[in-house]
Amino acid sequence: MNDTLLLAFDDERALAEELAAALGVLLAFVSVHRFPDGELRLQLPKPLPATVWLLRGLQQPNEKLVELMIAAPTARELGARRLSLISPYLAYMRQDIEFNPGEAVSQRHMARLLAAHFDQVLTIDPHLHRIASLDEVMPPGVGIALSAAPVLGAWIAAKVPDALLIGPDEESAQWVREAAAAGGLAHAVGHKVRHGDHQVSLALPEVDVQGRAVVLLDDMASTGRTLIGAAQALLARGAASVDVAVTHALFNGDALPALHAAGVRHVWSSNAVPHESNAVSVVPLLARALTTS
Amino acid sequence: MNDTLLLAFDDERALAEELAAALGVLLAFVSVHRFPDGELRLQLPKPLPATVWLLRGLQQPNEKLVELMIAAPTARELGARRLSLISPYLAYMRQDIEFNPGEAVSQRHMARLLAAHFDQVLTIDPHLHRIASLDEVMPPGVGIALSAAPVLGAWIAAKVPDALLIGPDEESAQWVREAAAAGGLAHAVGHKVRHGDHQVSLALPEVDVQGRAVVLLDDMASTGRTLIGAAQALLARGAASVDVAVTHALFNGDALPALHAAGVRHVWSSNAVPHESNAVSVVPLLARALTTS
Repeated sequence: MNDTLLLAFDDERALAEELAAALGVLLAFVSVHRFPDGELRLQLPKPLPATVWLLRGLQQPNEKLVELMIAAPTARELGARRLSLISPYLAYMRQDIEFNPGEAVSQRHMARLLAAHFDQVLTIDPHLHRIASLDEVMPPGVGIALSAAPVLGAWIAAKVPDALLIGPDEESAQWVREAAAAGGLAHAVGHKVRHGDHQVSLALPEVDVQGRAVVLLDDMASTGRTLIGAAQALLARGAASVDVAVTHALFNGDALPALHAAGVRHVWSSNAVPHESNAVSVVPLLARALTTS
Repeated sequence: MNDTLLLAFDDERALAEELAAALGVLLAFVSVHRFPDGELRLQLPKPLPATVWLLRGLQQPNEKLVELMIAAPTARELGARRLSLISPYLAYMRQDIEFNPGEAVSQRHMARLLAAHFDQVLTIDPHLHRIASLDEVMPPGVGIALSAAPVLGAWIAAKVPDALLIGPDEESAQWVREAAAAGGLAHAVGHKVRHGDHQVSLALPEVDVQGRAVVLLDDMASTGRTLIGAAQALLARGAASVDVAVTHALFNGDALPALHAAGVRHVWSSNAVPHESNAVSVVPLLARALTTS
């Protein structure tokens, strides 16, 4: 694939190198300089081949979104004719409804903004609750969502052979089922209890966890408060151990130490978001999708 | 103008209130909440009238650009049929050429991005050097550039009646001429001396400054290093006093104390960018343009 380049940013170097090797394509980096006035200066390789895959996860998204709004048209000026975004974590997917009058439905606006700049947007486990597919917020065929559930399920089965997988809420039901199937594991799913517009608590599933090795599974963890509450409740109910596995290790603030302080034994994540908890790789998933799309 | 609303952000409240009063229109604010994962949640008044003027200066621009990319489509969904951006300071206007191979021409990309989201973009003294007008980077008629040079010139004439205005380089020549004409003041302009691609020093004009009250005039100041060098050189040549007047008081880092430490007496700016140095208002300028456009 001589006419294809993987373009990445320096803070995702390890993931970029693994992906370029799996794909057998050249890798180059966007150089980013930040001026004292906050402006960014970007420099891309020149010229660019016809097909460019731009790798950019959107954890802590705002500065990175501006980089993309500059990098995408620059890439086209420099020769890219087919420009795809590989965004292992896609931001703004949870703001999917006008919760209060006048509230921005950022999911829709961000999806359209990205679709206006890229021919394809490839991501992993986007947090879609009220919509079934990215096709509802992007032109058909632009958005491609892969799932890390099977690789997480297989990892868990290898580490905790008799694990009981527990998903936090109904929204994760199908995703947890896929992980359980891939690992040949038992699973159960809790449900959300809403108290007003933004207050939500979690009710654990009515299963006996006495003496069980439980693994809490979710697509993402930010502050970790949901997982912490669930872990404490499971241990109080007699679970032998509680581990946590997530696709997207955002783990903002003190989330990771707080999880361990709450009694969580292992915290595992995919490398969709670079983080010290990364245990399984999404590269084979991405490489398969990129070489068949 | 019952069908018109001025919409602003809380950190520009003073400018917004002054502008709303001058225009005789209702004022409302976009509510912005920032989540731990870096995402923003915006809430706008609902419903919106047919004409919405959104006030947002783009100093320290990146987070604010994302706000605009969310606020603009939200405003249209909430009823705005004509949506104008009032951006007293427009960012990314200096990256107007590919200085090195593959470098992003961010001026063009940002201009197009804003023009794709707003029917009109009104700004003050955009830093245009290699292009003559915003029409070269936006669809004709979308970009409107006003100049604060006349109000700055009049302010200086009132404070320093015999001032000699000095502009830093050829690019500021026309702009300094306008300020001088408005204030009935003498003026002169230096020139840039380039050392390589990004290294630039300034040569002062060959005028006798001995015993003169000099006012250095520029469209913007970021780190202030250019103005500091010029002030020191002018004082060394015998200038009686050196003041500084700029449209856009970015003054990043220690720029303001460093200017005073270099011997600069007064630092004046327009309120296009809210700053403690603000001395003259751009509101009459903006109000005139908005009520005649």
